[in-house]
Amino acid sequence: MKKSALQIARAAYQPKLPVTLTGAVMAVEGAPTQSVADQEEIAKLFPNTYGMPELRFEKNPNPMVGKSVNVGVILSGGQAPGGHNVICGLFDGIKRINKDSRLYGFLMGPGGLVDHKYIELTADIIDEYRNTGGFDIIGSGRTKLEKKEQFDKGLEILKQLGISALVIIGGDDSNTNAAILAEYYKAIGAGVQVIGCPKTIDGDLKNEVVEASFGFDTATKVYSELIGNIQRDCFSAKKYWHFIKLMGRSASHIALECALQTQPNVCIISEEVEAKNQTLQDVVNYIADIVAARAARGDNFGTVLIPEGLIEFIPAMKSLIAELNDLLAHNADFSSLDAEAQRKFVIENLSADNSAVYASLPAGVARQLTLDRDPHGNVQVSLIETEKLLSEMVGRRLEEMRAEGKYNGKFSPLHHFFGYEGRCAAPSNFDADYCYALGFNAACLINAGVTGYISSLRNLKKPSVQWLAGGIPISMMFNMERRHGEMKPVIQKALVRIDGTPFQRFAAKRADWAINTQYVFPGPIQYFGPAEVCDQPTKTLHYEHLDK
Amino acid sequence: MKKSALQIARAAYQPKLPVTLTGAVMAVEGAPTQSVADQEEIAKLFPNTYGMPELRFEKNPNPMVGKSVNVGVILSGGQAPGGHNVICGLFDGIKRINKDSRLYGFLMGPGGLVDHKYIELTADIIDEYRNTGGFDIIGSGRTKLEKKEQFDKGLEILKQLGISALVIIGGDDSNTNAAILAEYYKAIGAGVQVIGCPKTIDGDLKNEVVEASFGFDTATKVYSELIGNIQRDCFSAKKYWHFIKLMGRSASHIALECALQTQPNVCIISEEVEAKNQTLQDVVNYIADIVAARAARGDNFGTVLIPEGLIEFIPAMKSLIAELNDLLAHNADFSSLDAEAQRKFVIENLSADNSAVYASLPAGVARQLTLDRDPHGNVQVSLIETEKLLSEMVGRRLEEMRAEGKYNGKFSPLHHFFGYEGRCAAPSNFDADYCYALGFNAACLINAGVTGYISSLRNLKKPSVQWLAGGIPISMMFNMERRHGEMKPVIQKALVRIDGTPFQRFAAKRADWAINTQYVFPGPIQYFGPAEVCDQPTKTLHYEHLDK
Repeated sequence: MKKSALQIARAAYQPKLPVTLTGAVMAVEGAPTQSVADQEEIAKLFPNTYGMPELRFEKNPNPMVGKSVNVGVILSGGQAPGGHNVICGLFDGIKRINKDSRLYGFLMGPGGLVDHKYIELTADIIDEYRNTGGFDIIGSGRTKLEKKEQFDKGLEILKQLGISALVIIGGDDSNTNAAILAEYYKAIGAGVQVIGCPKTIDGDLKNEVVEASFGFDTATKVYSELIGNIQRDCFSAKKYWHFIKLMGRSASHIALECALQTQPNVCIISEEVEAKNQTLQDVVNYIADIVAARAARGDNFGTVLIPEGLIEFIPAMKSLIAELNDLLAHNADFSSLDAEAQRKFVIENLSADNSAVYASLPAGVARQLTLDRDPHGNVQVSLIETEKLLSEMVGRRLEEMRAEGKYNGKFSPLHHFFGYEGRCAAPSNFDADYCYALGFNAACLINAGVTGYISSLRNLKKPSVQWLAGGIPISMMFNMERRHGEMKPVIQKALVRIDGTPFQRFAAKRADWAINTQYVFPGPIQYFGPAEVCDQPTKTLHYEHLDK
Repeated sequence: MKKSALQIARAAYQPKLPVTLTGAVMAVEGAPTQSVADQEEIAKLFPNTYGMPELRFEKNPNPMVGKSVNVGVILSGGQAPGGHNVICGLFDGIKRINKDSRLYGFLMGPGGLVDHKYIELTADIIDEYRNTGGFDIIGSGRTKLEKKEQFDKGLEILKQLGISALVIIGGDDSNTNAAILAEYYKAIGAGVQVIGCPKTIDGDLKNEVVEASFGFDTATKVYSELIGNIQRDCFSAKKYWHFIKLMGRSASHIALECALQTQPNVCIISEEVEAKNQTLQDVVNYIADIVAARAARGDNFGTVLIPEGLIEFIPAMKSLIAELNDLLAHNADFSSLDAEAQRKFVIENLSADNSAVYASLPAGVARQLTLDRDPHGNVQVSLIETEKLLSEMVGRRLEEMRAEGKYNGKFSPLHHFFGYEGRCAAPSNFDADYCYALGFNAACLINAGVTGYISSLRNLKKPSVQWLAGGIPISMMFNMERRHGEMKPVIQKALVRIDGTPFQRFAAKRADWAINTQYVFPGPIQYFGPAEVCDQPTKTLHYEHLDK
């Protein structure tokens, strides 16, 4: 494909490795680890890989050439900026250890391993993808690697290609499965190490030992660029309320980070809505009160950030959706009714509380809840246009307030949803460095002979040369959770912590931002300018480090 | 407001003026001009300002300090990146001519002149806005300056503030009105010069003498960044068709420029649809054929760019909308009918052709056409979600093709609309330079004592230091057109020319882009990098200059 001028200039960027990784390294073992919860059960499930020590890399005063190794790599799940750099770092890392090492990429996600679809990633190919966005070098996919048959099928091709280490780049689920695969391959003596790398723009794969997932930095910067531009437009035209939904179903880190960067009038944080047991109407009233307060000052404009997953965090909606799933799954005739009869059926057959919630929803949304169902018959929550739902309900609430003499303004809403715009942006300097280092570090973990570890870089708030490199046993991040009716060992998802500094900073400022327009306009990601423009990590990372 | 790191760094950028304007200038007159059409009528309407010569600025070997002057400035219409720099350039320009000159900004558009709402723009204020996006320094508005009472009311405040020159920054309509105002003030001997500046992201204010309107460069670069990111995502995930609508109702320059920058699989150009007298179904079939051809190669993904104004360019839709406006305006009872009865009424009462078109539309869109009406009873075409309309009709067409054995793929559409994301972005180097020079040059036109001119910079494909500075009589761009039932002198709107090089380059490549994925990923606007990344003008400008 034809390269843009920026792509060509950016290809020359040399990611800045942590000093430790710039020469030969040795692995220093810490104390044995424990899982974050349910230690006994998890120890039982991972007899071969539980309790391993944290590893820290230090400069090796006695360097020697390592063994050549054949390595496989998989991109798993949704795209995140920097995935290509993980692979480039991994390639450079195994080549530095031994120039005869080889790298194979499995195509279109974990399915490529099971179906034996792969390419060898040579220097020519790798050089085309340095510092680029996207996952197109080998593609990605959502097949879950979780069954013994998949593991065995995968092992066939690994053996055939002489691959003794597999790097899985993915989110919490994919890293969970990487640990299960590591345990299995160790248990059967397959001779294949498995190493994970923390990926997701959602920012919900992080904890005491993994400071950030890659992609979050770049994606939130792209969204913040757009929100800032919209805010400048909004502040110039002074006539629209922009309702902006942001990707991130499981957690509100993206919305929170964008709010910290752009200072909108309103930002809803799902975790807070859940913690306070708020209803949809509570959220609507909160927004409507701010619209009215601004209107009283003559400001009939503003911005509202909404996390994609909001609906699923509202306890009353969660309960409604669960009962609807159940009700409609057991009433096959439902779809043959006309719209009016469907609505009547639902209202009459739900429990009183859920029926009331259902009846209170705008007709379009209520209907959407019964129409758009996935193949398992479940409501497709992701199809609900929460940004339109909220603005419609806010508009209705404002008319009530007008009738009560509490509002006397003009409310013209516009809607946006940002997600795909940021997942494949070319990585920021932070993500370019972080991803390259994650991949390079994964090569060092392979050379150290370990399995079931996640590539780990810490001290991320500092310039990349000062980052601390090492490995964390994935099982250390596990707890037991119910999934599809069964208790499973999984990596705990990191939600926004209401008592954490990022949220607290936001909460301390939001009343001011709501009324006194305090927009910030971050502008687009810069790759060539001064360090304070190009090299700042996220506000989330900045504030989280203040907690430490 | 708090400034972002980029804003602070960018404030220091010094726009590069054309060499001519860096010292004292003298105005050199060209030959008398004529309007592009209807010369006699227009000469009659502009007895005092018709036929004036083009002006060219040259370095003045005998510089002298000019008279101090009080100047007023107005931002008119939709936001466009760089508006602040026009004002900064104007400020610096009148201060260089005489340090005692003063600048007043009328607030929230032309209405500020009529209502006597203004602020003095001092150096402190100006310095806060250098190289920033938005129009928030004085705000903008859509009041049309076209009535004698408005002109007289405006003159009161101009006299009161001692203002002898007014600069109107706006699109084709605003510059048309600037010329009418200039004529009026000259006719009554008001002693107020009026100068226009060409603004609009839509790119439809341009002609032989105005090479580009400001804002088009930056806005299309922001949209192209986003389209490129989506294309990288699309190419990585390989499972979605992205339907992307782009702002620009009156012309398709934005869609065409973005297509030239990003090489999508499909880009619809409204002017071509109209020229070929295509139906909506023709457009749908064209897209569906490409979806099917790609599916046959296993590529169930792609991108489609759609200009916002498409619907109004489709002859059959234009005819339908016109008849609907008429039909519903004369049937007050229509709104009391239920949805089914409304549909029946429309189908029965339209002419046969329009009835057939109406019946062929997806029910939701058909209903939208009869529901969303502006205060004059007209269909609000801008509310039609053309991107969803097209994807729905394409999906339907693909199912027909499947039944005929001509399609065997998977079609999952996603939708985007980009407009507000780009109108207030911080200006690219091109727009920062162009706007600053337009404002500075306007100051030179004021010093030259002329009125009814538009600030003009030519040779824009070259680096800004080589641009040619001068002024063009606005009446030179006029022709007579029917507006609201009356023939009026107006600036001819520049549509995409089917025989122009930009379109021809696109047309020559699109079959290749459709089938062989050839995406380009331009990335975000850069302000600090190498010239080939930071200083490229648009492809449209580049190719148009090849025509010359």
